[in-house]
Amino acid sequence: MPESPIIAIDAMGGDIGPEVTVAAAGRILKQRQDVKLILVGLEDKIKAELSRLNLQTSDRLMIHHASELVGMAEAPALALRKKKDSSMRVAINLVNEGKANAAVSAGNTGALMATAKFVYKTLPGIDRPAIMTTLPNTKGHTHMLDLGANVDSSAESLFQFAVMGSVTASAVDNVENPRVGLLNVGAESMKGNAQVKAAEPLLQNSDLNYIGFVEGDDIYNGSVDVVVCDGFVGNVSLKSAEGVAKMIGHFMKQEFKRNLLTKVIGLIAMPVLKSFKQRVDHRRYNGASLLGLKQIIIKSHGGADEYAFGNAINVAILEAEKSVPQCIESHLGDLLQNK
Amino acid sequence: MPESPIIAIDAMGGDIGPEVTVAAAGRILKQRQDVKLILVGLEDKIKAELSRLNLQTSDRLMIHHASELVGMAEAPALALRKKKDSSMRVAINLVNEGKANAAVSAGNTGALMATAKFVYKTLPGIDRPAIMTTLPNTKGHTHMLDLGANVDSSAESLFQFAVMGSVTASAVDNVENPRVGLLNVGAESMKGNAQVKAAEPLLQNSDLNYIGFVEGDDIYNGSVDVVVCDGFVGNVSLKSAEGVAKMIGHFMKQEFKRNLLTKVIGLIAMPVLKSFKQRVDHRRYNGASLLGLKQIIIKSHGGADEYAFGNAINVAILEAEKSVPQCIESHLGDLLQNK
Repeated sequence: MPESPIIAIDAMGGDIGPEVTVAAAGRILKQRQDVKLILVGLEDKIKAELSRLNLQTSDRLMIHHASELVGMAEAPALALRKKKDSSMRVAINLVNEGKANAAVSAGNTGALMATAKFVYKTLPGIDRPAIMTTLPNTKGHTHMLDLGANVDSSAESLFQFAVMGSVTASAVDNVENPRVGLLNVGAESMKGNAQVKAAEPLLQNSDLNYIGFVEGDDIYNGSVDVVVCDGFVGNVSLKSAEGVAKMIGHFMKQEFKRNLLTKVIGLIAMPVLKSFKQRVDHRRYNGASLLGLKQIIIKSHGGADEYAFGNAINVAILEAEKSVPQCIESHLGDLLQNK
Repeated sequence: MPESPIIAIDAMGGDIGPEVTVAAAGRILKQRQDVKLILVGLEDKIKAELSRLNLQTSDRLMIHHASELVGMAEAPALALRKKKDSSMRVAINLVNEGKANAAVSAGNTGALMATAKFVYKTLPGIDRPAIMTTLPNTKGHTHMLDLGANVDSSAESLFQFAVMGSVTASAVDNVENPRVGLLNVGAESMKGNAQVKAAEPLLQNSDLNYIGFVEGDDIYNGSVDVVVCDGFVGNVSLKSAEGVAKMIGHFMKQEFKRNLLTKVIGLIAMPVLKSFKQRVDHRRYNGASLLGLKQIIIKSHGGADEYAFGNAINVAILEAEKSVPQCIESHLGDLLQNK
């Protein structure tokens, strides 16, 4: 465990950039006396933002200049080849050079994945890295992967996702044997597509706490800790859930705004509605990990605000404290030896 | 259009059976003076239920005896082979013999699909039938298919689902050219798994109002009328949405029950919460269609109550009025001729 984790922040990434990232860095430094942050990007812009926020650089809040930016719509391959001094690339380089323990970016997802994979390299025994995120459930939270790094995942890939997810969940949640489930369309063994059917025996014969097939609703009911799926399925599942949650919020607002009486009722109910809103606030779960690489990279939503981006920084801190890639590597080492 | 649609109801199907199905039939008959219902199942049980509800048989409410039951956990192939006088099978037979225009069942999904496919037969030009349901969105509703009849669907199957979905949506919603979208993990053409990429040109070159790729959240935001996907993906998407909706409801209840003050606020807010609850009530959308067969079969949730099962009967009435299978057949005829 690093004594005081150093996090490299792509200060220019995201839909908004330094206005969000620098403010989030300031917020986290106040909360956590034991971490150091490096703001990577255009020095002038970062300094301007610091002064606007009355923040000073220190040995806990550093600036590392990077002259280029990766656009949110830029082709990943081009960004990787041409933007060698981008804030994203330099933040990742700092981790690779041992000057930071983890990097965080709200930038272009494709470019971030390609760059991190290229610079960090994949862990031995991992064919393809996977995106994992944390989602709320009625009893706590669920980890889910892959959320879109891969489509058409093989059974072997699904098995590797399960190992990475289990090891990471165990490390960050301090849980011995997290329950791992394979996302399927029914709990019976005859159900499922070809990949899922082929992955089932690999999981059954592993040392994971594999609890069998789970269904979409299990993600949110607290019956499983790590949900494993192909990236296509995971992405659709996540966005469907986001869509229905947004619709429910929309309907609730409409009902409370229907007429003068319902508006008054809304005012009276405000404290309850507020604490309800906090519980379902998706910003609390911002910060997805690209697992399977030799170092830590956390992807924030592009549209994250200060609070949400701060949570992505917190995910980076936690994974750095727990040395997640080293945990995965050591578990994979055992698996590869036993093969 | 049949003058007064006759619906055959599997009165024994579902987790509860006649207590729900007979009551729902009574409710629908009161609402709709122009329909006739046939309750299929054990005559004694149905009669007992009718008398409990003070209902009489008439030329609008008939009983058709069937001596056997299909269990909710029974193997579909066995049910198909051995239970030739089951309430499910007989209801489907009545439609096939022209004695009813559509059948409804809350019974064993696998057995229902196998039996309907065997008795009705698949329409020419359709490789595999698909399950379609209606889901709420912020502006109205969305139709989505397939929801689990198929996994590993080919591009050609996805195209057939699109045709069936478009024709059905057009018929039941009285809409000229419903917007059809293909469910994917991003809107860019380079994204997607192999099936989706192969299906895209088939849809682009069709006469459907194909609007391109849509994502999971689009199902609920009103930007598309018919969402097409593989049954594995569709089932996960639907159950993920159900799961998150349930979790949100659970959190809301908890917040309003936190202490005496919040309970009082909950009482004050009750009328608003009630009308909100009505809007997100999934029972309103009960009743999925198995499309691609020569006749109409509607599948109700097994756990449906009287109100929910009544809505499944309404879906059957609507599809019978619009002669949905004939609409699909005629559209497919044009397509096959143009090949």
